[in-house]
Amino acid sequence: MEVTQVLHMNGGTGETSYASNSLVQQKAICLTRVMREEAMSRLYRRMRPKRIAIADLGCSSGPNTLLVMYEAIKLVEKLCRELKQESPEYQIYLNDLPGNDFNNIFKSLESFKERLRNDIEDEHGMGSCFFNGVPGSFYGRIFPDKTLHFVHSSYSLMWLSKVPEGVENNKGNIYMSSTSPSNVLKAYYEQYQKDLSLFLKCRGEEMVEGGRMVLTILGRRSHDPSSKECCYIWELLARALNHMVSKGIIKEEQMEGFNIPQYTPSPSEVELEVEKEGSFSITAMEVSAVPWNAYDDSEYGNLSESLRNGGYNVAKCMRAVAEPLLISHFGEDIVEEVFYRYQQILTETMSVEKNHFVNVTISLIRKARSA
Amino acid sequence: MEVTQVLHMNGGTGETSYASNSLVQQKAICLTRVMREEAMSRLYRRMRPKRIAIADLGCSSGPNTLLVMYEAIKLVEKLCRELKQESPEYQIYLNDLPGNDFNNIFKSLESFKERLRNDIEDEHGMGSCFFNGVPGSFYGRIFPDKTLHFVHSSYSLMWLSKVPEGVENNKGNIYMSSTSPSNVLKAYYEQYQKDLSLFLKCRGEEMVEGGRMVLTILGRRSHDPSSKECCYIWELLARALNHMVSKGIIKEEQMEGFNIPQYTPSPSEVELEVEKEGSFSITAMEVSAVPWNAYDDSEYGNLSESLRNGGYNVAKCMRAVAEPLLISHFGEDIVEEVFYRYQQILTETMSVEKNHFVNVTISLIRKARSA
Repeated sequence: MEVTQVLHMNGGTGETSYASNSLVQQKAICLTRVMREEAMSRLYRRMRPKRIAIADLGCSSGPNTLLVMYEAIKLVEKLCRELKQESPEYQIYLNDLPGNDFNNIFKSLESFKERLRNDIEDEHGMGSCFFNGVPGSFYGRIFPDKTLHFVHSSYSLMWLSKVPEGVENNKGNIYMSSTSPSNVLKAYYEQYQKDLSLFLKCRGEEMVEGGRMVLTILGRRSHDPSSKECCYIWELLARALNHMVSKGIIKEEQMEGFNIPQYTPSPSEVELEVEKEGSFSITAMEVSAVPWNAYDDSEYGNLSESLRNGGYNVAKCMRAVAEPLLISHFGEDIVEEVFYRYQQILTETMSVEKNHFVNVTISLIRKARSA
Repeated sequence: MEVTQVLHMNGGTGETSYASNSLVQQKAICLTRVMREEAMSRLYRRMRPKRIAIADLGCSSGPNTLLVMYEAIKLVEKLCRELKQESPEYQIYLNDLPGNDFNNIFKSLESFKERLRNDIEDEHGMGSCFFNGVPGSFYGRIFPDKTLHFVHSSYSLMWLSKVPEGVENNKGNIYMSSTSPSNVLKAYYEQYQKDLSLFLKCRGEEMVEGGRMVLTILGRRSHDPSSKECCYIWELLARALNHMVSKGIIKEEQMEGFNIPQYTPSPSEVELEVEKEGSFSITAMEVSAVPWNAYDDSEYGNLSESLRNGGYNVAKCMRAVAEPLLISHFGEDIVEEVFYRYQQILTETMSVEKNHFVNVTISLIRKARSA
């Protein structure tokens, strides 16, 4: 499986699209707003660039895509008024893998710009916004040298550039789990190290000195990479697939060859890579959590019957994210049944325990380059 | 009709897609290669930028999209070797209206980059290429100030930003024609002037001093804006629509409200706008022609039966371009029949006369800004 060719959130705006099923990711973005605002505010006060280049890496396609850009522009405009500074030009880069539904984003840009103008423009005016789609893997160079001021990425960097090599003996599992052999855990960790390090190196080249980067990675609190907090969600999907293997619907060899190209790091594992790579200093770090069922919250009082069904919501959320991977490996025919079974398993599980996605957020500053 | 929302070439790669039916446009690109190479060569020799920003405006989606970029990069690399200069970074901007099928372009980028490397890279290496999709109308700012070195646009600038106002009395026609009242010709010309002037102003702001721009516009040789060389192709489409009005399939009011948002200028009309607007000087200008049936050429010896049918080819070419406009105005139901009738009319016409699309190509240089 070529991850860069296969991985993408479900496109469009339909029932199973990522656009319609990304409340978890939106909550994570909201939870980390303060860190982003702190970073952007310090950046702008110090540099006051005439043109500010902001990139979102792994932007996907849907209501979350432009949320961070909206906030960022609003904040910079506020700072301009406070500092009696002319508004900068905004160069906005939206990056994702080539399979992402960029068409869908692009069609929404006009109304987004109009909303920006309605909400922000006053007698001070506001800076012009130029939007660019940037297709390509962030585990490689996607921008010219020293061009970016601010980089954001949320719920993207846990995706690895490929399934680690040498995980053939991860039987019955599709991700790291408590039953995974130690070589599997090691292979996953090594791939993570390579990938994150390459990511940091590339961004280090693309960003200006003093540039800021805020990354939110689906991760874990525990030191144990096979801990339940990060692996259980995939373990339950593996359970659905294993049922289908036992029924003869999926072949055992097929199941054995399927592993999720993801690594959910702990805060200290993120810290370690940043320090080893050396282009960035860490200015802040925090861990937050979002319930598996993002509607599981007092603010959603009047939910429809189906949205009150946690298993339904979580299965849809995971389907929007993982369906292209499953289709690419198992074919289209099994997908409905997989997610039907997954939903049942999730509903059952969630009736007896409450689980969370754990987010590791880190705020970085591009160090001065040595002469 | 909001042209910027509606106008786009047919997406995808299927039977009626622009990608599969754009040989006319490709021929126009090939015919104008020398002018582009001359312009790029002079630009590079004079500036030798470390990062060169090249934009294609109205890039569409298909084999033509990356053709000009391929040539441009190849030429610059050749010049680098000749001048013993390090390769620049290439910042490639692909612009079109938001309805364009950018997803299709983005999915082809990896193989395009591989082809570039295979064809160009040698012991000298080659510059990194960074691709960006830029959705938006070029009758407005789409890039920051003074960032572009080279701008190309082919078969796009004849599209107006909107249908001219006050053409309600253009009865039985869908474009300018010899039977159009003089106020219609005037309205079309005025809209063309406004649009081209705005285009030049915006590009003037976005381009660096000494930057080069090569524009190929579907146009005409004659001074008469309703001359056959530019209007006949639409007149025959109007004939198909009028048949359907007479059969009661299309309502007369509907037909009367439909006008093509296009203006096909003469060389002197282009020259005049450039001089009036003032940001650019003209370095070269030429007129070329492509037969309606682009396969109408000795180099396509072994054509299939259908491709030897000129009416079939031309109807498909025009469908790939105009179908979204027709659907937006008349609805989806009539489209098959319109193009079936159009093909018949074209076949008949082309059996007795040979017609050409006329291209006006102009090479411009961004003047020094006055202090």
